[in-house]
Amino acid sequence: MSLPEPIQRRDTVLDPWIDTYAERTHGLTVSAVRALFSVANRPEVVSLAGGMPNIADLPREALGEAMATLIRERGTQAMQYGSGQGEPFMREQITEVMAEEGIHAHPDDIVVSCGSQQALDLVTRVFCDPGDVILAEAPSYVGAIGTFRAYQVQIVHVAMDDAGIVPQALREAIATCRAVGKQVKFLYTIPNFQNPTGVTQTLQRRQELIEIAHDTGILVVEDNPYGLLTIEGEPTPALRSMEDERVIYLGSFSKTFAPGFRVGWALAPHAVREKLTLAQESATLAPPVFSQFAISTYLEQFDWRGQIQVYRDMYRLRRDAMLQGLIENMPPGTTWTHPTGGFFVWLTLPDGLDSQAMLPRAVSARVAYVPGTAFYADGMGSRNMRLSFCFPTPERIIEGTRRLGEVLHDELDTMRTFGIGITEHLYRDVTAGPGPDIT
Amino acid sequence: MSLPEPIQRRDTVLDPWIDTYAERTHGLTVSAVRALFSVANRPEVVSLAGGMPNIADLPREALGEAMATLIRERGTQAMQYGSGQGEPFMREQITEVMAEEGIHAHPDDIVVSCGSQQALDLVTRVFCDPGDVILAEAPSYVGAIGTFRAYQVQIVHVAMDDAGIVPQALREAIATCRAVGKQVKFLYTIPNFQNPTGVTQTLQRRQELIEIAHDTGILVVEDNPYGLLTIEGEPTPALRSMEDERVIYLGSFSKTFAPGFRVGWALAPHAVREKLTLAQESATLAPPVFSQFAISTYLEQFDWRGQIQVYRDMYRLRRDAMLQGLIENMPPGTTWTHPTGGFFVWLTLPDGLDSQAMLPRAVSARVAYVPGTAFYADGMGSRNMRLSFCFPTPERIIEGTRRLGEVLHDELDTMRTFGIGITEHLYRDVTAGPGPDIT
Repeated sequence: MSLPEPIQRRDTVLDPWIDTYAERTHGLTVSAVRALFSVANRPEVVSLAGGMPNIADLPREALGEAMATLIRERGTQAMQYGSGQGEPFMREQITEVMAEEGIHAHPDDIVVSCGSQQALDLVTRVFCDPGDVILAEAPSYVGAIGTFRAYQVQIVHVAMDDAGIVPQALREAIATCRAVGKQVKFLYTIPNFQNPTGVTQTLQRRQELIEIAHDTGILVVEDNPYGLLTIEGEPTPALRSMEDERVIYLGSFSKTFAPGFRVGWALAPHAVREKLTLAQESATLAPPVFSQFAISTYLEQFDWRGQIQVYRDMYRLRRDAMLQGLIENMPPGTTWTHPTGGFFVWLTLPDGLDSQAMLPRAVSARVAYVPGTAFYADGMGSRNMRLSFCFPTPERIIEGTRRLGEVLHDELDTMRTFGIGITEHLYRDVTAGPGPDIT
Repeated sequence: MSLPEPIQRRDTVLDPWIDTYAERTHGLTVSAVRALFSVANRPEVVSLAGGMPNIADLPREALGEAMATLIRERGTQAMQYGSGQGEPFMREQITEVMAEEGIHAHPDDIVVSCGSQQALDLVTRVFCDPGDVILAEAPSYVGAIGTFRAYQVQIVHVAMDDAGIVPQALREAIATCRAVGKQVKFLYTIPNFQNPTGVTQTLQRRQELIEIAHDTGILVVEDNPYGLLTIEGEPTPALRSMEDERVIYLGSFSKTFAPGFRVGWALAPHAVREKLTLAQESATLAPPVFSQFAISTYLEQFDWRGQIQVYRDMYRLRRDAMLQGLIENMPPGTTWTHPTGGFFVWLTLPDGLDSQAMLPRAVSARVAYVPGTAFYADGMGSRNMRLSFCFPTPERIIEGTRRLGEVLHDELDTMRTFGIGITEHLYRDVTAGPGPDIT
């Protein structure tokens, strides 16, 4: 079979506008997310790559009827322009959703966005000049890295372990940045079932993190799309439930309901919320209006808490399948995280293997993943990969780990035969030929 | 009655993050659009201010049924993540819509956006560094001015008359900017039924504009939300139908269908389209997915061309009502444009009157409009106002012009009694008190 669309591509040749673009545009590169969709869509490949939720269990028949009634009875509002900040009823209901995680918020402090990705874009837009620093976990969400880069921000990674960000590393990163005259605009963190590692910050770490924010005066952006998708143990309180003046909280309906409506939000200190609303107005006039009516209808008329429980049970089976498959199929020297919720497992390869270099061979063996390098701004992560258990069935997940295991065993055999470091060259010669478009 | 929320407001006091914001954030001011919504929503006020389309005539019953079927049969795709560039079927259908205006385009050169406002945001993001120049008609769309400001762009207005942009003024503006070392990134123009003036560029002017673009090497951004809403005479060909290499075309379903789905698009030269897609991915991951399925269903299953004809006939009645009301009620010395489509009439007050200063008195007289100053980046427009005929019924429009006529007669009486320039002071003293928050 042919190779997937490569993650990095040739630059457009002969672009007559090349000298006209903004400075920031030269830093825009093809996102791993897009390339991954094209891989994930091939039916013969078990994709452990994409972060698409499984929404097959939504009550579509009843949802369709509810939408028909919505359009019939309130269509002239639902299909009209709306508020730049988001519809008042939607913001009110968002406070109820956040209350599930112990967050007490006022609807006036919420700005609705076109997916929580856009909330992150607006936060970055409002706070960051080129050259400013954002601190992020090492590794961190690929889409956040892309957004930060689009604003020409310098991303400084902070070490994490299986309990979350290492407090001492955070203090040192802030001190180091300030010592060289860099302004740290905020810490970006995903405390629950982190993307890509699946790691959850412990309560003690969260308390230390808030303490550091107070001591150093930094702002914390808490990205929490998976927070309600606990599949093992008790939920840990959100940072925003412990501190309201220094935390901007980003939430989303993409994982607890469905992503296609593109509704997320930011909950921010009041003064910041005003700026975010202005930024939203200039970016979109208003976030998706019909989507807000649709989601509001869903929250009103359906057992959304029950649906989240359905999701939890479904994802638990898939995570269990993945962990079992990894135990059965991974060669010695391979390690991985044990997520208690969310979508992802983070895998560390045996010494000498390179996840990006071996990706084409993995896809040839009909299994896909995201190489660890996608989640670092600094080129690290070559021994890592992100495996998602959200979308394929448990049986397919097991089969995917089996295929991946075979690939790893083959890689190790090759390495033992030819020595460490040879795999990259083999890859170029054997699989792809010498063309310049595969890197 | 009390005053409307003023268009300019006090800055937030005691904002602890004031020194942390990006440079661009200090230029963000409350948009006229938001303030206008709050005015427009009061039932006792005839709002000639907002640009909301009248969507009351959409076939809601049938639309609801179509949405129910969509969710039942294709819900797992329609509610899932989608393409950053926009769904392929949607882009294909967009080419059919643009073909109505003589535009031949390939679906691959289209990027779908969260309303065409977001397409404009992405274009500005991709092209403009702080301090770059964008040329725009004098006056121009308030939302575009807001977006350009958010990217710290210098807006240079180019004179227009009742045939559109004055070619010689355009040549001179480009030459002047270049003489002082400024980079002109593009000309932003609304050729059809311009917002706010209602003016349509003649064919000859369009040809001259394209010629100037070629001569000077500038890019043209053609914003065309109202293009299909011709209510008198024949449509004029789109700039993009005459030139495909130097024109980025922005389109929208907000006026030809409904704005609540928030679906617009940019059609761009291929290299630019690649950059726009990357920018869209970092901004939203994907534009509203469900909305695209909904609009696609509408285009497939409904007589959308017939619906546009319904809109045209309805808006023609409203425009006629407004022109008749103005003839009957405006004092001598007042002039206005004669739009052949779209939503807006641009009115010039008798010498000595100030549309912004008199707005609170107009609202007290239960009629609202947008002061002309909102449509200039340079403080001009105080003798102008934008009147929309899109949303109120013809009877309400007539009543609105009657109320506005009374206000103007009162203003003229006051001016004759106290002299030119007194109205601003009267406004401060009598209506609002000396507070700093009304300017």
